[in-house]
Amino acid sequence: MEFRIEKDTMGEIKVPKDRYWGAQTERSFENFKIGTDKMPKELIHAFAALKRSVAKVNANLEKLDSKKAQAIIKACDEIRDGKFDDEFPLVIYQTGSGTQTNMNANEVIANRATEILGGDFRKEKLIHPNDDVNKSQSSNDTFPTAMHITAVLELEKTLLPSLEKLKDSFLKKEDEFKDIVKIGRTHLQDATPLTLGQEFSGYRSMLEHSYEYIKNSIEPLRELAIGGTAVGTGLNAHPKLSEMVSEELSTLLGTKFVSSPNKFHALTSYDAFVFASGAIKSLAANLLKIANDIRWLGSGPRSGLGEIELPENEPGSSIMPGKVNPTQAEAITMVIARVFGNDATIAFGASQGNFELNVYKPIILFSFYESVKLLSSAMDSFRTHCVDGIKANLENIKANLENSLMLVTALNPYIGYDNAALIAKTAHKNGTTLKEEAVNLGILSAEEFDKYVVPSQMTKPKA
Amino acid sequence: MEFRIEKDTMGEIKVPKDRYWGAQTERSFENFKIGTDKMPKELIHAFAALKRSVAKVNANLEKLDSKKAQAIIKACDEIRDGKFDDEFPLVIYQTGSGTQTNMNANEVIANRATEILGGDFRKEKLIHPNDDVNKSQSSNDTFPTAMHITAVLELEKTLLPSLEKLKDSFLKKEDEFKDIVKIGRTHLQDATPLTLGQEFSGYRSMLEHSYEYIKNSIEPLRELAIGGTAVGTGLNAHPKLSEMVSEELSTLLGTKFVSSPNKFHALTSYDAFVFASGAIKSLAANLLKIANDIRWLGSGPRSGLGEIELPENEPGSSIMPGKVNPTQAEAITMVIARVFGNDATIAFGASQGNFELNVYKPIILFSFYESVKLLSSAMDSFRTHCVDGIKANLENIKANLENSLMLVTALNPYIGYDNAALIAKTAHKNGTTLKEEAVNLGILSAEEFDKYVVPSQMTKPKA
Amino acid sequence: MEFRIEKDTMGEIKVPKDRYWGAQTERSFENFKIGTDKMPKELIHAFAALKRSVAKVNANLEKLDSKKAQAIIKACDEIRDGKFDDEFPLVIYQTGSGTQTNMNANEVIANRATEILGGDFRKEKLIHPNDDVNKSQSSNDTFPTAMHITAVLELEKTLLPSLEKLKDSFLKKEDEFKDIVKIGRTHLQDATPLTLGQEFSGYRSMLEHSYEYIKNSIEPLRELAIGGTAVGTGLNAHPKLSEMVSEELSTLLGTKFVSSPNKFHALTSYDAFVFASGAIKSLAANLLKIANDIRWLGSGPRSGLGEIELPENEPGSSIMPGKVNPTQAEAITMVIARVFGNDATIAFGASQGNFELNVYKPIILFSFYESVKLLSSAMDSFRTHCVDGIKANLENIKANLENSLMLVTALNPYIGYDNAALIAKTAHKNGTTLKEEAVNLGILSAEEFDKYVVPSQMTKPKA
Amino acid sequence: MEFRIEKDTMGEIKVPKDRYWGAQTERSFENFKIGTDKMPKELIHAFAALKRSVAKVNANLEKLDSKKAQAIIKACDEIRDGKFDDEFPLVIYQTGSGTQTNMNANEVIANRATEILGGDFRKEKLIHPNDDVNKSQSSNDTFPTAMHITAVLELEKTLLPSLEKLKDSFLKKEDEFKDIVKIGRTHLQDATPLTLGQEFSGYRSMLEHSYEYIKNSIEPLRELAIGGTAVGTGLNAHPKLSEMVSEELSTLLGTKFVSSPNKFHALTSYDAFVFASGAIKSLAANLLKIANDIRWLGSGPRSGLGEIELPENEPGSSIMPGKVNPTQAEAITMVIARVFGNDATIAFGASQGNFELNVYKPIILFSFYESVKLLSSAMDSFRTHCVDGIKANLENIKANLENSLMLVTALNPYIGYDNAALIAKTAHKNGTTLKEEAVNLGILSAEEFDKYVVPSQMTKPKA
Repeated sequence: MEFRIEKDTMGEIKVPKDRYWGAQTERSFENFKIGTDKMPKELIHAFAALKRSVAKVNANLEKLDSKKAQAIIKACDEIRDGKFDDEFPLVIYQTGSGTQTNMNANEVIANRATEILGGDFRKEKLIHPNDDVNKSQSSNDTFPTAMHITAVLELEKTLLPSLEKLKDSFLKKEDEFKDIVKIGRTHLQDATPLTLGQEFSGYRSMLEHSYEYIKNSIEPLRELAIGGTAVGTGLNAHPKLSEMVSEELSTLLGTKFVSSPNKFHALTSYDAFVFASGAIKSLAANLLKIANDIRWLGSGPRSGLGEIELPENEPGSSIMPGKVNPTQAEAITMVIARVFGNDATIAFGASQGNFELNVYKPIILFSFYESVKLLSSAMDSFRTHCVDGIKANLENIKANLENSLMLVTALNPYIGYDNAALIAKTAHKNGTTLKEEAVNLGILSAEEFDKYVVPSQMTKPKA
Repeated sequence: MEFRIEKDTMGEIKVPKDRYWGAQTERSFENFKIGTDKMPKELIHAFAALKRSVAKVNANLEKLDSKKAQAIIKACDEIRDGKFDDEFPLVIYQTGSGTQTNMNANEVIANRATEILGGDFRKEKLIHPNDDVNKSQSSNDTFPTAMHITAVLELEKTLLPSLEKLKDSFLKKEDEFKDIVKIGRTHLQDATPLTLGQEFSGYRSMLEHSYEYIKNSIEPLRELAIGGTAVGTGLNAHPKLSEMVSEELSTLLGTKFVSSPNKFHALTSYDAFVFASGAIKSLAANLLKIANDIRWLGSGPRSGLGEIELPENEPGSSIMPGKVNPTQAEAITMVIARVFGNDATIAFGASQGNFELNVYKPIILFSFYESVKLLSSAMDSFRTHCVDGIKANLENIKANLENSLMLVTALNPYIGYDNAALIAKTAHKNGTTLKEEAVNLGILSAEEFDKYVVPSQMTKPKA
Repeated sequence: MEFRIEKDTMGEIKVPKDRYWGAQTERSFENFKIGTDKMPKELIHAFAALKRSVAKVNANLEKLDSKKAQAIIKACDEIRDGKFDDEFPLVIYQTGSGTQTNMNANEVIANRATEILGGDFRKEKLIHPNDDVNKSQSSNDTFPTAMHITAVLELEKTLLPSLEKLKDSFLKKEDEFKDIVKIGRTHLQDATPLTLGQEFSGYRSMLEHSYEYIKNSIEPLRELAIGGTAVGTGLNAHPKLSEMVSEELSTLLGTKFVSSPNKFHALTSYDAFVFASGAIKSLAANLLKIANDIRWLGSGPRSGLGEIELPENEPGSSIMPGKVNPTQAEAITMVIARVFGNDATIAFGASQGNFELNVYKPIILFSFYESVKLLSSAMDSFRTHCVDGIKANLENIKANLENSLMLVTALNPYIGYDNAALIAKTAHKNGTTLKEEAVNLGILSAEEFDKYVVPSQMTKPKA
Repeated sequence: MEFRIEKDTMGEIKVPKDRYWGAQTERSFENFKIGTDKMPKELIHAFAALKRSVAKVNANLEKLDSKKAQAIIKACDEIRDGKFDDEFPLVIYQTGSGTQTNMNANEVIANRATEILGGDFRKEKLIHPNDDVNKSQSSNDTFPTAMHITAVLELEKTLLPSLEKLKDSFLKKEDEFKDIVKIGRTHLQDATPLTLGQEFSGYRSMLEHSYEYIKNSIEPLRELAIGGTAVGTGLNAHPKLSEMVSEELSTLLGTKFVSSPNKFHALTSYDAFVFASGAIKSLAANLLKIANDIRWLGSGPRSGLGEIELPENEPGSSIMPGKVNPTQAEAITMVIARVFGNDATIAFGASQGNFELNVYKPIILFSFYESVKLLSSAMDSFRTHCVDGIKANLENIKANLENSLMLVTALNPYIGYDNAALIAKTAHKNGTTLKEEAVNLGILSAEEFDKYVVPSQMTKPKA
């Protein structure tokens, strides 16, 4: 490989000749061989959007030469188009302020902008990574700004749409199954009846609630640190910069961002990530319950509950011929286990700030990002390969319902809890039906029993 | 001890003669000797408020004899006054639906109401625990209703007031310290200056943000399961009961409650607890950062940072005479460690529902309740015994500020990042001042240096 | 209440007249109104054992007057007998070094020993809490020593015995059920057969493995910090003290303790607690699986799997008459959720040491202690109220087994996986038996089928 | 892209023409588009070692034609050499049994072995993936076997060596710094002195303890599930297969493996992973403390503690010229936050088994693997880029030591705790030295003071 010599305040260093990155990126690349997870490209694109916006604002405020600004803007747009994704080689486990990724962005933009201005960045820097691209900024305000942008966009464009589609799938099933009366189960034990549609309405409602929580948790993420610079005071930035950049980003990205009301908070607290991760965790907890229900209701084919049938997607066993398993439920529940772990990581990181900075930013961002991406794709997969294809197994549902001793509950208002219990317990002991025992025990006539115990009417309240 | 004989659907059982509880409470008491944590009295009082409200509504709907209703209401009011706290002996680790605590409430109310009606509950039951007190209800809707009531009241009356007071304490310090310019620290390394008031404004802002998150997270907790009865269908309840009881509770308790829009969700999902616990965890993470900062800033007395002085509350060491330690910071950070654990417990429990029920309700409620109580009392303690008494150590602050090499940052706009770095690095190497080296290196005159580098002006942006 | 005046290095303070505790205990009592959890009495007794042993060793080393030593020893023995449990009022959330509880012990022992020597501690101190009782010690070595003693004893005397008994219960069931052939289930789907005894042997083996892990994790807890005094150097202690006290404690408590090989480690690292908590967590994870299996196998009574029957301990529902639930499984699984949370708390606390001390000791100890106590009592309860009374439901087991399509797996070696799959899939589609389809498809004769497919022979390997 | 048609028991499917994988791999590849994390190549190589060993044993037991066995063995060796890494495209979030990765291995091996036998796998299968490669096996025993192999090898060859090297680095520093007396710090407050070497010995001892925990936790991972086949009974396997394969693997891989004593445990319980993850978490907690100490001791350069100097690796700030940060400490602490999250994920997954299987295997394996890889590389990076280059800052160390008021502790045995406290508190109040106040207060002469208070003698116990 051919190299060129770059230098920074630490001295000279060899950089691969064709790379747009510079000395500081190279140092980080060499000093942090930890894991393989790189900064997400969405974060890099958020950086490009930010650097673009600051350049424009700085030019408007007459802090930056407008020709330089134009070159920076063009370079940023190319990055946002994905043309330079390979120029961001740094891993998550670097400096905890993300300074090295900020400098990676500054260096790539400066070098590309130098080219745009007709220079050869290997020989001269027409644009300086610190003095021009990073002007009026610090890693300490740009990295959290890029984090917040990434989080807002990922929640709005990735997680919530997948969640909404899954909710809609359940809504369809809710309607499809609305007249199928089935046995309820509490404590895993037979309980009073409900419709299969009602059962699925619970899933739909869980997702709706989670949707609202996540939506609410986006709001604090809209607050941007930009303008705080090194420690939150805004040193070397124009007083109007923060608001102007926030407006610029809102327009550019099509969703609202605001200047954080307290930049000392913005540089040190990732409470908005903890809060949003909590909202996401509530979704994960709900999804685990839903996925478990679905695989349990689909258990069998002959010795399980067997009340629904799941799509058969793959052979389920390397040894048991003909076996089919609820694999989509398994994949999403593994994702949930991961999301729970990520939530622990995020809170830990968020708790460990000191003075004017928190240096767990990359791991907070990455864990959050991973949770969003995994949940989103797992919900898509679960929906298309499982939920959409669920069918009711009417035969089993009917058999289970008719056997149930808990239909006795309908008798409470007529004969009291104690008499009803006597009937149920006797039927259980004798392996008989409720009706038989109600009559045998002389508590009700067969006609009365049939009048009071009507499963379909037990699925709703009565005036 | 003297006993009486009570019976339920399982048969007879001996109960201490003077106790108001009945057979089912006794069975649970004997069958679950696990730990010592009992159901919080606030939950019991919430149950009393609920049972009272349902009795009143049932009477209004002509489902319950109004004389019975009056007796039940009176009994509930006595429980709410704390007169029967000792009659609720059951522990957290019982049935996961909380059925046994619901029956504990039903039994105590029924027996006390029997007395109120002039009967002797040891001989006769003028009020039936299931048919009267539990009428139109199930443990499956009452326990989560009581959970939600408890959570809303604890957040509103316990946690948020303590949080607000702590925030106000920091606000006072922010004002008191607003003109004290000090060195900033990022990565634990010297950074550009800010005022001590700005540093404390960050703490205040953290608490304000947490306050908003928690406040928002109360809203979903206002949804009540009541009316869902056994599996969410509302079997044996009047269609209007849920909304009427919610209104009744809102009036009685002075804060808004609403009927949950989907009772299948309400019986199986504790997503509102996960969400609220996430909000609380964001507070905990913020508090850890604040408490760490404060003990670090107060470290010393001679070989630490020593920029603030904390109140001296107790001798700090059994062996080192005269030692004083930041003990309030230590207590609250231990609480935070507990809150993090509780959040894990809550999410785990919330994820484990099956079909029409989640049977981790008591541990969800208890972990949540513990987090609220501990954080609230720890914040009160931290505030009164530590924050309110913090003083600035002006001598140390001044010395640290003047030594700082990072004041060089103010020169960036004038001489560029690379020249500024050269000055700082040279001064660091030589153990000299920035000014000396700026002049020695021929980059600036002494006058220029003094004009550009003014710490107090570095604490804000400049147009 | 009547008071007396005590004083310490901070000055005078009023203490309830009849209390044995002194000034420092009183200060902590007043300054830390956080929660209600007090230091466990087992920890207090461990302190008494330690103080006793150090007094004896100090006397032997001629560092402490032997009359004083005798009085201290007697006072400690009384504390170990539980006579002064009420004299230890301090909560967990105090100073993170536990200094205040060390001083609580020093003060109560000093005052009681003063009495033993014929003095009135309200008027004079014949024994000084620091100079005599705490001689050659610091909170920084005594508190972790008491923690380790408590942990070793609780694991050996509380957790492991309960675990062993539960394991033995399963072993009995394993034997009782050894000839009952039943359907296996993987992915919740029907699989090849095994015996119910084999299924229970898995539970037994899980508990055996957990037992070994926990037993191994006790070893590092045997290392004691005593002798490290304030920062680990052993200042003011005799070089032989640490080993002599460890031997003394081994004899006194009947289990081995050793002097920690590196006291700087011993004062700052609670890695032995993290490790042991991980071992306990592996038990918790196993127990959750076991408890879930048992409630699932016992689900029904009519529309569940119904392969075993659990003891009926209490009425299960306030609304559904006759319902019985797997409540012991519910209680223990809630305990497990708590144990998971405690493990997170312990690791968090253990990670937060600084320099010569970790100041999360009380919460580490308490969370660990709670996990041990809860798991132990929950296993006892689960065993006596559930496992011991489990019965096989032979009728359901037989029906499930005979229906199973996965018996086809026995045919793999004879006809290959693909043919076997064809048979199973056809039978599934047609709702027929494997045998019918094996013959219909012309793959096997009925005789061959009966020869190859023998469920009881499928429960073991074959040469 | 060109395709060929493959088929399995679900029917036909198009597979990229040049790929060695078959129908089931392709189905999984298409059905699980969740995240980007693939099964680690170490796991794939473990599968190859396993399949190789089973083929050899099956041939020895005359269950498999020896020509077929030879071809399988050769194919496996090629996989172990890394020649087919690209043929394993499946992600972690697939079926929870890992069946699809087992089939991926079976298919690639079968197709490659077909080639080795002179066939063209696109046209004919001379080796059948189920009947030959998977003979006597199930995913349910092979996947956990491969998991255990991977875990043992990764701990032995990746984690422990990195840990040992880091420990050795600290040992060197311990020796280098053994005569440097410095102030101790407890509660972040000045405490009695110790040597810098002693402080570093604590780090070394922490790592030694963690090493032992992890080493112990490897033992249960040596137990292999192989031979349990579908549900643990060993159906379709030879009774000797499990032990013979374990021996074969021990020889092949150079470390001991044994047949699991209870295969029902082996298929359902990942307690060995929970236990080992707990051991790893204890390392993580220790490392966090160490990394925090080091960055704190290195804080400054002028307004921190400044007792050590860390290597300067990169420019630390995009805005503050000349700033250098403890970036290696930041990277490793972020890794630790991740490891804590992984531990939560592992325990969650391990707790969720049902009946004869746990279907969270891939996420358990992956989270464990990630923790090992990250910690190992982070320790290497921390060692080479930070620890090895640490230097003592003697000037600051001396100044801090001499200022310390806690040297007063040496006086306890001579003048008692109360007098010593009086001296320290007076010196603190007056900003004077201990010696001055000792003399002023008339408690000691200057000569006595100098005789009793000798910092270097305070770093060890005294007879």
